[in-house]
Order: sequence, then structure tokens, then C-alpha cells
Amino acid sequence: MNATNISRQDCLALDQADALRELKDQFDLPAGVIYLDGNSLGVLPRATLGRVQQVISQEWGQGLIKSWNDAGWIDLPERIGNKIGRLIGAKPGETIVADSTSLNLYKVLSAALTLQRQADPARTVIVSERSNFPTDLYIAQSLAQQHGARLHLVDDVAEIPALLNQELAVLMLTHVNYRTGYQHDMAALTAATHAAGGLAVWDLAHSAGAVPVDLNAADADFAIGCGYKYLNGGPGAPSFAWVNPRWADQAQQPLVGWLGHAAPFQFSTDYQPAAGIKRFVCGTPALLSMSALECGVDTLLAAEQFGGMAALRSKSVALTELFIELAEARCGELGVRLASPREAQLRGSQVCLSLAAPLEHAGYAVVQALIARGVIGDFRAGDPQRLDAVPHILRFGFTPAYIGFTDVFDAIEHLREVLSTQQWQEPRFAQKGKVT
Amino acid sequence: MNATNISRQDCLALDQADALRELKDQFDLPAGVIYLDGNSLGVLPRATLGRVQQVISQEWGQGLIKSWNDAGWIDLPERIGNKIGRLIGAKPGETIVADSTSLNLYKVLSAALTLQRQADPARTVIVSERSNFPTDLYIAQSLAQQHGARLHLVDDVAEIPALLNQELAVLMLTHVNYRTGYQHDMAALTAATHAAGGLAVWDLAHSAGAVPVDLNAADADFAIGCGYKYLNGGPGAPSFAWVNPRWADQAQQPLVGWLGHAAPFQFSTDYQPAAGIKRFVCGTPALLSMSALECGVDTLLAAEQFGGMAALRSKSVALTELFIELAEARCGELGVRLASPREAQLRGSQVCLSLAAPLEHAGYAVVQALIARGVIGDFRAGDPQRLDAVPHILRFGFTPAYIGFTDVFDAIEHLREVLSTQQWQEPRFAQKGKVT
Repeated sequence: MNATNISRQDCLALDQADALRELKDQFDLPAGVIYLDGNSLGVLPRATLGRVQQVISQEWGQGLIKSWNDAGWIDLPERIGNKIGRLIGAKPGETIVADSTSLNLYKVLSAALTLQRQADPARTVIVSERSNFPTDLYIAQSLAQQHGARLHLVDDVAEIPALLNQELAVLMLTHVNYRTGYQHDMAALTAATHAAGGLAVWDLAHSAGAVPVDLNAADADFAIGCGYKYLNGGPGAPSFAWVNPRWADQAQQPLVGWLGHAAPFQFSTDYQPAAGIKRFVCGTPALLSMSALECGVDTLLAAEQFGGMAALRSKSVALTELFIELAEARCGELGVRLASPREAQLRGSQVCLSLAAPLEHAGYAVVQALIARGVIGDFRAGDPQRLDAVPHILRFGFTPAYIGFTDVFDAIEHLREVLSTQQWQEPRFAQKGKVT
Repeated sequence: MNATNISRQDCLALDQADALRELKDQFDLPAGVIYLDGNSLGVLPRATLGRVQQVISQEWGQGLIKSWNDAGWIDLPERIGNKIGRLIGAKPGETIVADSTSLNLYKVLSAALTLQRQADPARTVIVSERSNFPTDLYIAQSLAQQHGARLHLVDDVAEIPALLNQELAVLMLTHVNYRTGYQHDMAALTAATHAAGGLAVWDLAHSAGAVPVDLNAADADFAIGCGYKYLNGGPGAPSFAWVNPRWADQAQQPLVGWLGHAAPFQFSTDYQPAAGIKRFVCGTPALLSMSALECGVDTLLAAEQFGGMAALRSKSVALTELFIELAEARCGELGVRLASPREAQLRGSQVCLSLAAPLEHAGYAVVQALIARGVIGDFRAGDPQRLDAVPHILRFGFTPAYIGFTDVFDAIEHLREVLSTQQWQEPRFAQKGKVT
């Protein structure tokens, strides 16, 4: 396809031919909006409101305390975990839903460090990326201090292989980078980590529901992920955790709440971890948010009849390739540059753009101007000391269940108009507050 | 009042004269139910369904990512925290809502142990009660191991004073015991702890919204509490944490998620804790559950016009005293014994009963028979090795905003009928599963 020739009519035809097009009917989307921020907060599934109403009015309001058993509340962490498992190559019983991504990372990274400390105390290095999502780095810093370990951050993926050595305790990566959309080769890096005697911890925040993941095939050790991005679970939806079965019964994690106990309703004084993944549950789960998450996960499972994650991925690649081609063809001379990997296999389901000089500082205003036009992406600041290496970026997520080819075409046209008319210079789009 | 003479008509009159009676209109209560389990899961406020619908349909569905600012989502942990603060003697800015009680206890107990280790490494003992809620003990065990500390559990409150010595790091108590309803003297124990050089950590799970609490007057160091019991926040509602302002800016806690950072949207690589209580926020909050919690807290704040927690407490004491008097007068000869403190000032807002021989094992079935009649309390198993000291208990919570004197009268009549007709022996009430 030659992007310079593709027309809106062509995009309409692509949408009409799209085998996944009816998945969009599952969502309540605001009118007049092209939502390219499902990588930050997924949209509202049509089923969610009714389901949460039922939980509130019937299960809580009428059933009250009895609903822990009668409505199956007590089983939700495993039930929804198993559904998410189908999206990430996990077998039943390997995945649970609980708490936030930060907290689940704390659990699994702590478990991995404890396993390594027991196996070989000389392994004290956690390797990760400086561009990893900050909460991952903060949690790793906290645990490194606690475990007498050291966090080694790389600026380039090419630095990683040399660090997979006898000092390595854990390689901790976000599978798809939140800024650039760079997608790591999970299987290859996990194999190299294991060959070096390390354990691999994967954050699937931008992967689950976005790209095919097969944790068992990759032989990963631990993984966690986010419920409110591509899984459409709602704002602050609970997170999930997965543990390789070979570790599940021996992994120790420090957030030992009563619902991770082997027999919580014995109310015994001493902690005895539940068998397997259930020990990664901590306190009482936030039931309303968790119920909404199930509806979100169901929107991904609905794609199984159309080919599942592989089909979603094919469309995602087509959407992002079209977006890149159109951005360069129609906005390249206006200063737009690609800030994500060009090769689809190195990219998740998002595309980032940057702006060349003299517009290198205009990113925030451009994103605001786009939002005012109903094209919702987001802005992630670069490193003001070295904008050439880490530029300000315009970040766009592509969720194939509800984004179509015409949306891509229209988004690019809006971007072109914002830049060509210099609309972004309107005072209302100026940066408020300090976002360096 | 002589309980043997009090009639149902008298109770109806008490309800009609009750200045708090209109607070009940705030709730959607199931018909035909006397709900004496608000200490386990509070009831549904009438405002909750509409509020959560609004958050789902409007704020999430229409506002999408913009609602973090436009709908004030980002401020909810502090906004609701400040509302809860009004119930527990906290000033604005001292309380936040986040995560579960287990996790908030992990944060504040870790912070307290770290402060003590820095001040005096010889202080390595955490003192608590063996009858504390298990999750508190599990978290303390986990942190004791991590901090090289030791958990000393007492079987009797009278053992505590001797343990407030030069080895004491932290006194960690649940203010109102979950089993017996015993209420500690927070101010006196905190003062004695401080005199010994210790820090006092209070779990308010059965206190917030149940009994008057004044954390600042008691000069407590740290506190946490539950959103889904007396605060009516809904199943698994988020918890709250409070930190004395003298510690808030120096307290370090290990669950360092991005929303506890001083500037989360700078996405900086290194963790820098937010000023004050905000550093006790970790990851992204579960917004639907949190929004429901606010409606629950509002039902307690609605009592402010009638005298607030003091007025609720007066009615709670009247309800529980009536319950005790009626239980002993009308069910005493059937084997019913009081298993909570008799003095109101030593008791929270719950009353526990036990059954004397030969009924000492009948508690579970009796509770089930009561539930079948619409009188919902719960059963907590005793220690099968020494049922005389730790008996099986029938636990009843009294929430004065929606429980009246006639409810108390009727509940006791049901108990009397269950026992006098031996209805509890019906096979359908037999214990299922293993609850030792």
C-alpha cells in the first residue's frame, strides 16, 4: 500500500471488509471522538454498567455478606485471573487478579529475589531499562535496598546481553515499553536470562490484550499486568499476577494478607501460604472494580471466535503501519517524525511521534489541540537535557477492537491541520503546570 | 431499664423517640432482614448506585482519560481521606485512602519499624494480641522477619504494660477486637507506649464509623482502617491510612508506587516521596470501588447534624446494652452467655455471645438458623483445644444509623425461638466444610 495514494474511501472499504468490525459494538464510545489512548485507560464496555449495577443492587444490596459465597465473590481473583490467562498463554490456576500493578510487581520481584538469594547469594543485580515505567523502577529500588541488591539500568536494549552474567539475579522488563512502544523478544531474553542463571520478570501492562503473549511458551518466571489499559477494566482496575508453576508453590512474597492464606476462614494466628498462585492474593479485593474488570476482559475473549489475539494483532499491525505511513507521507514535511520502532515485530500496539526542530517543544500543545478536535492521544515529556535522544512524544494507542482504518485516516488529517494551520499555537493549548 | 420487663411496644417507642431515626433512610436494606453484620460488610447506601453509575457512564464512558483531571479522580485519595479524617480525629491532609487494610498496615508498620531502627536498633519487639485479626499478625510476622524484629503476642490485655519497655519498637493493636469487641483505651496505651520509647500503630477496622476516635488527642503515631465495615463502602472497599504529622514527612514505606511520588507526572527515574501523607499512596486507585466508598463515608458524615459520632455512640451503647440485657434475661436459661465486655466503655459496637454446655458446639448451627430467619450475624470459631477460654462465638454488630431498638428485640426473640424449639438441630443448619 502506498500511503500517499490511500484515500478516506479506501479506509472506509478496509473497515467494511474488517472481520473484527463487530467487536466495536461491545463498547460505549463517546460521539465524535477518535480514542487513541486505550493504552492509558481503556474504553467502557457496554456490559459493564449493568454488571456493576447488579453487583451493587443485588449482590451487595440484597445478598449482603452472603454474597461472598452465594455470588462467588470469593472466587473472583481466580476466575478473572483464568480469563486473563487465556490472553497471555497461561493455563488455568496460574493467574490471579489482585491489587495494583505496583503491588503485584512488589510481590513477584520480591519472590524472585528471594529465590535467587536462596540459590546463590552472589547474584545481586536487577537489570532493567531506564525508560521502564517509573513505578517499576521505584518498586525495584525499594526491593533492591531491602534485599541488598543493586538495580542496573540500561539506556539501550543492546546493553542487556552483556549483563546476563553470574551477577544477574533478575531481568525485569516491561514487555512493551510505555513510551516508545518497543516490544522486547520475551522468549529470547528469557532464554538468555535462564542460560545465565537469572530469573525473568515481565510487566505486561502494555501487552495483555494488545499483543500475543505466551508466558508458558516463553518459559517466563513471573509476570504482572494492568487491568485498565487494553483490558478495558475501568479506571484503576485491579492488576493481575502470573507465576510459572515451577515456582508457584515455593515462591514467598511479603504482602501476606489473610486471603492469601491456605485456610483464611480458620483465622489462625500463623501465616500458611495457600498452594500455588493464590498466595499472591493479599487483602480483601475491591469487588466493584474487580467486577468491572471481568466485563473488560470479556471484550477481549469475544475476539476468540474471530481468531483471538492473533487476529487482533494482525489488525493492530495494519492500523499502526497505516498510521506511520500516513503520518510520514502527510505530516512529514510539517516536522513529524516516527519515535517508535518501524518494524512491526519490534512494536506493541502503539505509535509515538516526535516533532523536529523548530517544533521540538510543541508536542504538548499539539496533543491538546488534537484532543480539542476529539482525537485523544497523550503527551509524554522527553528529557529536557537531551531532547535529541529522548524527545517529547505524541503517543497514540491502537485498540483494534474499536479503532478502524478510517479513524486512523481522520486522526492524521487532524494532525496535519493542527500543524499546517499552526492551531497548536492558540493560547488555550499552552502548557499548564510543570510537566518537564 | 429492667430487661425482663421491656416489651416490643417499649422498643417501638424508643425507635420513635430516636433522634437518629431518619439516618436509616440513607440505606437500601433488604426487606425482612435484621442486619447485625455491618461490622463485617456494611449495607448499601441509597446514593451509591447513582454515583457509581455516574462514574461509569459519564466520567469513564464519556470523559475517558480526561476525567483524571476533569472529574477530580486524581484527588480522590485525599478527598475521601479527609472525609474519613472527620470521623477519627484527624485534620485535613493527614489521612488518605488507598489499597487494602493489609497493605496499609504493611506500609505504616514498616514505616514505624524503620523509624525505630534508626532511633534505637535495640528496640526490636512488636507487641500485639494473639486474638488480633489474622491479617494484622501475618503482616507483622512478614515485617518482623524483614526488619530483624520479633512479634510478641499477648493472650491477655493485662500482659501489655510489662512489655512496654526498652525493647519495645511498636505496640500494634486493633482498637476494637474483631472477635470479642473489646475496646482498648487508645490514649492511655499510646501514652504508656511513648513513655517507654515505643510507637503506637492502631488498626481502626472496627472503630472508624463505629466508636468515637480522636487520633490527634490520643497522640497516636500511625493508624489504618477498613472501608467496607462501618463505613459502608461496599465489598472490598479501599482502606485508609493516617500518619501523625510529626512523622509524615520523614516516614519511609516500601510500597513506593508512582502515585506516592512527589511529582508523578514527571515520570522521573528515581523515587522522591510526596510530602506528607500522600507518600502512602502506591499505585493507581480502584476508582469504582473508591467512588462507592465516598458514598458510604457520607452516610456517617450525615450524622454530624445530629451530634456525629458521639450521638451514634450513645445510641450504639443503648442498643448493645439492651441486647445484652435481653439476651441474658430471655435466653440465659437456654445457655446464652455474654462473650464481650459487659462495661460499655470496654466494648466497641458489637456484642458476642457464646453457648454454655451442652450447646458449646452449637454456635455455627444457631447462627445459620438465625440467618434463615433473616437475622444476620456471624459465627467465629473458638479454639477447639480450650473452648472454655476461647469459645465459639455468635457475633452481632450494631450500626446505629440503620438498626433500631425493635430490631434488637426481634433478634433476641428469634434467638430464643431457635434455642427453645431446638430449630438449630435441623440438618440444613449443620456445618459444611471444615471450620475449626
